[in-house]
Parts: sequence; C-alpha cells; structure tokens
Amino acid sequence: MTYTDTDDSRTLPQTERTTHRRLREQGSTDRADLEAILDAGFVCHLGVMVDGAPVVVPTVYGRDERWLYVHGSVASRSLAADPGAAVCVTVTHVDGLVLARSVFEHGVNYRSAMVHGVPRTITDEAEKLEGLRRLTEHATPGQWTYARQPNRKELAATTLLALSLEEASVKIRSGAPDDGASADAELGLWAGTLPLNARWGAPTADPLLPTGITAPAHVVARAGTRHG
Amino acid sequence: MTYTDTDDSRTLPQTERTTHRRLREQGSTDRADLEAILDAGFVCHLGVMVDGAPVVVPTVYGRDERWLYVHGSVASRSLAADPGAAVCVTVTHVDGLVLARSVFEHGVNYRSAMVHGVPRTITDEAEKLEGLRRLTEHATPGQWTYARQPNRKELAATTLLALSLEEASVKIRSGAPDDGASADAELGLWAGTLPLNARWGAPTADPLLPTGITAPAHVVARAGTRHG
Repeated sequence: MTYTDTDDSRTLPQTERTTHRRLREQGSTDRADLEAILDAGFVCHLGVMVDGAPVVVPTVYGRDERWLYVHGSVASRSLAADPGAAVCVTVTHVDGLVLARSVFEHGVNYRSAMVHGVPRTITDEAEKLEGLRRLTEHATPGQWTYARQPNRKELAATTLLALSLEEASVKIRSGAPDDGASADAELGLWAGTLPLNARWGAPTADPLLPTGITAPAHVVARAGTRHG
Repeated sequence: MTYTDTDDSRTLPQTERTTHRRLREQGSTDRADLEAILDAGFVCHLGVMVDGAPVVVPTVYGRDERWLYVHGSVASRSLAADPGAAVCVTVTHVDGLVLARSVFEHGVNYRSAMVHGVPRTITDEAEKLEGLRRLTEHATPGQWTYARQPNRKELAATTLLALSLEEASVKIRSGAPDDGASADAELGLWAGTLPLNARWGAPTADPLLPTGITAPAHVVARAGTRHG
C-alpha cells in the first residue's frame, strides 16, 4: 500500500483501494466528510473473509479520532483464523432516488464511507470499556451513564474490534439528475428526486416495565428528530 | 457446500454459511421473510474480494423468483479477475434501538437478508433488459414504462450481475429488550425501544425542468409513505 503524500492531515490518503476509479465527481477526500458520514449513523456493514468467501454483516460501531470500534463476532471468528486478514467497513445513508428522463441516468442520492484495514481485536479491559462507551454513546448519546455499564464478565463476553480510520474513502451524490441538458430533456418527461427521510419515533416502553418509570430526557428528546 | 434436505421449497436451505451460529432465535428459514426483506429495500451492500481483501459497496438491486439482479462495476472488475469468486449481498433494514437496563443487553431491531454465491455477469441483451426492468421497478414502481428505456449502447455500458437466491439467510430482531425479567429490572431504569422510521418525502423537480411538467402519479403517490 503506497500513500500519496499530502501536506494536510485532514485529507484522506489516496491508496490503491481508496482512489476513486469511476464517478470521480462523487469522491471526497475530506476527512470531515468521512467523520460526518460515520457520525450520522450507527449501523455499518462489515465485510470479512470466511472460508475464502466474503461475508457482509450489519453491526454497530462507534469511533474516536483515530479508531472505528466495531461490534462483531463473525469478524472475530474470521480473525481468529487469520489475524492479519483485512476487513472493509461501509456506512451508507440513502438520501433518495434520482429519477432522470432516461433509465440509464437513474441513480441514488447517498453518502457512503468505506474504511479498509486489518483490525485489532481489543483485549485490554480499559480500552474495551472505552470502546464500548464510544459505541453506546454513538448510537444513543446519554445512554452510557444512564444504563448499567458492563461488568467484567460481560466485558469478557463482548467482542470489540478497532479498525484504523487512516485508510478510508467517501462517496457522495446529491442533487438533480444529470440529463437535464441532454437530448432527453426534449422528451417532456418529469425528472427530479424523491427524498427519503429517516426519523426517530416515540419511545416505546418495555411491556415488563413497572408503571411510573418514565423515559429519560435524552431518549424523549430524540423522538421526531432526523436520523442519517 | 452441503444442503440439508428439506421437503419444503419455501424453506431456505441450511448450508455451512447460512446456518445461524449465534442469536439463533433471530434466524428465519422462511423464504417469505427473505423476499419481504428484499422487497422492502432497494440498496444492498455487496461484498466482493478485490486484490485479496473484502470490499463492501452499496449498490441497487432487483429480483425475480430465482435471481437477485445487482448493479455493479466493482464486482465486475473483481469477477473479471476471478469469474468463480463468491460474493455476498446483504440487505438490512434498521427498525430502531433496543434500550435495555444494561449496556450489555442493548441492541438493534432490524431485518437483514444475506445472499451468498458466485454471480453471473449478464451478457445476453434480453436478459439484461429484463434484469434492469426488475431493478428499476424495484426501486420505483411505474418508472420503467414512464422513463426512456436503455438503448443498445447504454445497455452495453451497464454491468448487471445475477446472483441465485438459493443460498440465503435471514435474521430478524424485534420487540422489547431481553432484560425485563433479569436482576437488572430492580434498578428502576426505563427500558424499551426507540423506533426508526423511513418515509418518502415530496418529489423535488429538477431545476432544469420546464414549467408545466408535473410529477407522474406513481411518484406523487409515494410521498409520505413508509419505506423499509
């Protein structure tokens, strides 16, 4: 893997894997875009090799400046077999459909981040606890201090991977279809986008919850807000 | 790959890859669940091997009874290098957060389908057209007959893969947290779920669209409806 030199630490390094080969206009090399995409979601798709074939599993993640923390047992099985095996973690937000005049120009508005590397299985107890804190707070800010934190037995039963955020790529597509100035514009067809919006609903109490226990403010406040 | 015999063609075959090893209660072997999950979305995550490492890319798909049709150039590059290489296609719908009393029992309500196999790159023109029709109608029902369909040049420039739906697995988690009857229930903490809902917004016209062209009924009708 050869990095192209960059002066700017906020520019994502261009490697053979991260250099955009097609739809170049959709690629971003701005680390801020990477972080924004990661921060807007909490479920990633983790690609690992299992018995010589790729397996893609959805799982949850969190991050700090340097590491992506990924919850996962499939990857740990794979890594146990080959500790030097690379993985790929992809986070995608679908923002809507791009409905062009021609089927060929149809597409999707989306933001996607892809992180490549060889992950570490976190074994240090303090690091695992901190990783789980990041992961929990990433999915539900405020929940780490509200809920009961993991005890040693639970910590030991949890598999947490750390993947460097160094080698990553970002793709973003937004806006109108691309055939508005093409010959197809003469067809007189409607063209535009159909946005897709994800929102948090109202909290639903566990049926086993005794009456009188109300949802905490950090959960209630999220209802109705945008996700993604 | 050894299939377990099943009498029922609507039961997903159990292979080494599809047999659920953990969280067994979340596995479904009902082909109707697979189809429902595939039909509820239009973006999948495709895992392919590129230069010995897994790469996971978001892309669009459609299906018929037997095949998943996947749009993709990354996979085709990989397949050109190794036509017998397996891929994994995963479709995930995130239904909400599971907020338990303990961090350890936190989770996600979701529906996920995973399809494994060696895809074919579709070369036959009629089959490619039919696959693209399925894919287009899958994302936006009504759009195939409304928009201009691909000409031969566009068809040749489009890479479409067909992946058998034979080997697939499904995982579903729904409902309340699992620690309502545990010792942690005594902590007096709120627990429940925070649902996540995706809805289509109102169609946004291409700024280049001449005035007087209104969005077609099949697009307008979708605004405000649930997705996923």
